Amino acid sequence: MTPAPAPAPHELSHNHRLRDLQQLLPADRWESSASALAAFQSDGLTAFAVQPLAIVTPQTVDEVVQVVRWCHQHKVPFVARGSGTSLSGGSLPHADGIVIALNRLNRIVRLDLPNRLAVVEPGVINSKLTAAVEHAGLYYAPDPSSQQVCTIGGNIAFNSGGAHCLKYGMTSNHILAMKVVLADGAVIEVGCEGGEQIGPDVLGLMVGSEGLLGIAVEITVKLLPKPESFHTVLAGYGDLQTAGAAVAKIIGSGLLPAAMEIMDRLSMQAATAAVGAKYPANAEAVLIVELDGSCEAVAAERGLLDQLLEESGASQVIVAASAAERAKIWKGRKSVFSAVGRLSPDFIVQDGVVPRSKLGFALTQIEQLSQEAGIKVANVFHAGDGNLHPLIMFDGRQPGELHRAEELAARIVQVCIDLGGSITGEHGVGMEKRQFLSGMFSDDSIHCMRRIRLACDPHEVANRGKMFPDAEAPALSMYGLHPLEKQGVISRM
Amino acid sequence: MTPAPAPAPHELSHNHRLRDLQQLLPADRWESSASALAAFQSDGLTAFAVQPLAIVTPQTVDEVVQVVRWCHQHKVPFVARGSGTSLSGGSLPHADGIVIALNRLNRIVRLDLPNRLAVVEPGVINSKLTAAVEHAGLYYAPDPSSQQVCTIGGNIAFNSGGAHCLKYGMTSNHILAMKVVLADGAVIEVGCEGGEQIGPDVLGLMVGSEGLLGIAVEITVKLLPKPESFHTVLAGYGDLQTAGAAVAKIIGSGLLPAAMEIMDRLSMQAATAAVGAKYPANAEAVLIVELDGSCEAVAAERGLLDQLLEESGASQVIVAASAAERAKIWKGRKSVFSAVGRLSPDFIVQDGVVPRSKLGFALTQIEQLSQEAGIKVANVFHAGDGNLHPLIMFDGRQPGELHRAEELAARIVQVCIDLGGSITGEHGVGMEKRQFLSGMFSDDSIHCMRRIRLACDPHEVANRGKMFPDAEAPALSMYGLHPLEKQGVISRM
Repeated sequence: MTPAPAPAPHELSHNHRLRDLQQLLPADRWESSASALAAFQSDGLTAFAVQPLAIVTPQTVDEVVQVVRWCHQHKVPFVARGSGTSLSGGSLPHADGIVIALNRLNRIVRLDLPNRLAVVEPGVINSKLTAAVEHAGLYYAPDPSSQQVCTIGGNIAFNSGGAHCLKYGMTSNHILAMKVVLADGAVIEVGCEGGEQIGPDVLGLMVGSEGLLGIAVEITVKLLPKPESFHTVLAGYGDLQTAGAAVAKIIGSGLLPAAMEIMDRLSMQAATAAVGAKYPANAEAVLIVELDGSCEAVAAERGLLDQLLEESGASQVIVAASAAERAKIWKGRKSVFSAVGRLSPDFIVQDGVVPRSKLGFALTQIEQLSQEAGIKVANVFHAGDGNLHPLIMFDGRQPGELHRAEELAARIVQVCIDLGGSITGEHGVGMEKRQFLSGMFSDDSIHCMRRIRLACDPHEVANRGKMFPDAEAPALSMYGLHPLEKQGVISRM
Repeated sequence: MTPAPAPAPHELSHNHRLRDLQQLLPADRWESSASALAAFQSDGLTAFAVQPLAIVTPQTVDEVVQVVRWCHQHKVPFVARGSGTSLSGGSLPHADGIVIALNRLNRIVRLDLPNRLAVVEPGVINSKLTAAVEHAGLYYAPDPSSQQVCTIGGNIAFNSGGAHCLKYGMTSNHILAMKVVLADGAVIEVGCEGGEQIGPDVLGLMVGSEGLLGIAVEITVKLLPKPESFHTVLAGYGDLQTAGAAVAKIIGSGLLPAAMEIMDRLSMQAATAAVGAKYPANAEAVLIVELDGSCEAVAAERGLLDQLLEESGASQVIVAASAAERAKIWKGRKSVFSAVGRLSPDFIVQDGVVPRSKLGFALTQIEQLSQEAGIKVANVFHAGDGNLHPLIMFDGRQPGELHRAEELAARIVQVCIDLGGSITGEHGVGMEKRQFLSGMFSDDSIHCMRRIRLACDPHEVANRGKMFPDAEAPALSMYGLHPLEKQGVISRM
C-alpha cells in the first residue's frame, strides 16, 4: 500500500485553521466541494480564475461579524461577494482565503416610504428594491446594466453608476447610512438617515472602496419619486464623432437629460441580434437621449432638444411613443454587454473616462488603435459622462489573442489618462487596472490610500491583492503573464 | 533691581522652536504681536477665545508644505484658517500652536469654461469665484449665507451648504479634485477633473473633515450654468407648524425647488430692521420657495407650486416680479444671522437636523423649551433639508446668561438626536458639538474616525482638540466651565 503524500505544511495549517472557522457556524453555511469552489473561481471578468479555500454563506449580520473577526485574528484573507458581476475582477477569490457570499443577506429590513428611504441587506438585488417600492411611486435610482442580477452590496463596493447617473448621480449619491463590519471586526455605523455628514465622510470613504475596508451589512438608501413623464429619443448619425459632438452641444445648452448614451454600429448589431432592437437605417452611431420630470417640464424641454438634435446633423430621430417603446430602447441598450457574445466568442469590456469635450478625439483614437491591432472594438457608452465602454472582441481559443486584446485594452486606458480622464468610470480598479493606478496618482497619494486601508484593516485581509499596484499575491497582472500562471498555480480562461 | 521672572520651561522651548520656523520663511509671513494674536483669537463662535503663539501667512503652496512639515516634525499643532466664519469654533486657535492663515492663497489658478471647471486656491472668497465666471453664464453653486466673506477652503473643511443645497447639494457635490498637504507633510492629489472616483473616495473623505487631516491647497470645482429663469415666492403662514407642513407637501408632490427656507416672526423683524426686507402682514412664519431652470420648465412648475401653496393654508403669497425683487428676498434671508445682533446683544446659532416629516413637531418642541427657559429663540432654516438654525438670543453681560443659553442650545441638539436627525447640518462639530458626537456614533465608529485621522496625522497636529469628544487641550467644553477657564488661561467672551 502506497502511503498518501504528506500535505504541504502550508496546506496543513490552512486546513487545520479552517476547520475551526467551519465549526463556528451552522453546517449549511460552509461549502468547499470542488464544484462549489469552481463556481466561485471567476467573476464578470472571466479572464481570471482563482479557486478559494472555501465559501462561507452567512445567514445573519452576526455571522458575518464572527467570520470577519476570525479572518482578522488568523490573518486569512477574505473576499465579500454578491452576484459576482464585477467587470474588473473585483470579486476574484484569493487562493489562500475564503469567499464570504452575501446572497442570503437579502432582506429588505425596513421601508420608510414617507421619508423615502429603505434599509436593506447587501445581498438585495438592485432591481428588486425598485420592485418593492414602485407601488408607492418610488424607485431606487442607480441602474447599472446588470441591475437584474447585481446586488446593492456590490454596487456600494464599486460605487456603481448606470445610464441615468448623468442626472441622478452614482451609488454614493443615494446611500444615507450604513452599518459596516470593518476588516478587523469592529462594527461601525456611518452616515445618518437625514443624509447629513458629521465630521470626516467615512460613509463616502466606504462607498467605492472595492471591498478593501470591510463589509456593509445594513444599508440605508434614498428612494426617489418615479418621474411623472419621460421623453426618449434615438438619433441616428453618420459617424461616432458627430454623435459625440451632439452630446457636448446638448450639455452646453443647459439641458440636463436623465441619460445620454451612444451605441456604434457593432453594438447596434449585437442588440438587434439579441433582443430584436431596431435602429435608424444606415446609422453608424445612435445617440439615446432621455428627458424626465413632470409632464410640464418634459414638454417644455422637448422643444429645445428637438432643435438641438436637428442642428447636430442627426440623419433620423425616432421618438418613443409609448412606455413599451421606451422599454424597448433601454432593453436594447442594456443588452449590449451580453449580446456581444453573439458576435464574438470572447470580449473585454473596457471602462475609461475622457473629458466630454474630448469625446470625439478619443473615439477617433480608439478606432485607429483598433485598426492597427486588427481587433474589432464595439463602442457603447455613457456619453453624457464621457464614460467609454469599448468592447474588445477576440477569440480566446486562438493562441495569443487574449494577450493582444489585453494590450489593446491597455492602450485605450492610456488614451484616457493622456486626455486627462480616468482609468475607470464605474467598474473599479479591481484586479484589472491595478498597474494603472500610478498613472492617475502620485506615490504619496497611493500611500495615503494604503494608510487609510491599514487603519481599517491592519492585516490587509479584506479583498487582499486588489486595487493597489504593488498588492501581494495573487498578484495577477492582466496585461502580462504572472509567474504563478507559469507554475500553473493560477489559471486564466 | 528686580530680576525678570524666568520663563516657564514650556514657554522657553516653544519660543526657541518657533524662531526656527520663523527663519524658514520671508519676514512678512510672520505675526506674533499682541494685536495680531488678539485678532485671531476667535472665529464666528465668539463664545470661545484662545490666542495662538503666532500667525503664519504663507504666500505659496510650497510655503504651506514647509510649515506643515515643520509642525509635524516638532509636533506643534496648527489650525488652518480662511476668513474665520466657522460657527462651531472650527477655526479656534490652539494655545500651544500656530494659525496658518490662507488668505494670501487667493488666486484663481485656472478657468476651463468649456469643461465648466475652475482650479482655485483655498483663500478664494466664495462669491468672488462666481463673480469671475458669470460673464460666461456660469456660477459656483454652494451659497452659504456668509458667501460674501467665507473662503472655498473653509467651505471644504466644513462641507458647507447654503439655501440652494436642497437642489444642488453641499460643497462635496461640487469638488472634483484637490491637492492636499496632509498633516504629516505629504502632498497628495485626490479626485480627478472628470469627477470619477477611483478606489476609496479620499477626496470625499477630505471634504468636511474639519481640518483634521490636512490642508487643501489647490481645489478643482465644478461650475454650473446659471439657471435661465427663477420663480421666487414668499408665502405667509399663521404659525411655524403650518409652514413646516407645506414643505413636506411640496417635496411630497415631486417638485424639487432650488430652495425652501422658513423664517419666523423674530427673524423677519431682524431682517426688516437690518435691510428693510418686507414680509406679509401678520404672518407668524414665511416660507420662501424658489424654482429655477429653463424658462419653459419653471413656467410649467409654477402652476403646481401655486396650487400647493394655496392648499397649504398660506395667508398670502408674494411673487418676486423682477430680479431686483428676488435679490431683496434673498438679501433679507441671508442677513438674518448678522441682523439678529440688532435685536439681542448676543446669540448662539444652533445647527441641527430633523427628518423633514418631523419638522412641525421639532419646532413645537423648540418653542416649548424656549418658553421653559425664558430665552427667546428665532428660527430661520433650510426647511427643505430639515436643517434647523435656531438663534438663541441672550445678553452675555448678565451673569449666567451665556450658560443658560448654552444649556438651551444643548437641549435643542438633543431633540434633533432623539428625532433621528443630526447634531449638525452644515456648521460642523468643531469645538461646539464635540460632546454630542457620542450621541450620533458608537465608540467603534468614533474610533474608526480616529484611526483614519491618525493615518494622515500621526501626531494629531492638524486642528488638534476639535471634533473628537475626548480631544485633548484646549479641551473647552462649551456647555460647562473648563478648568483652564477658572485659571484664566483661556477666556470666553
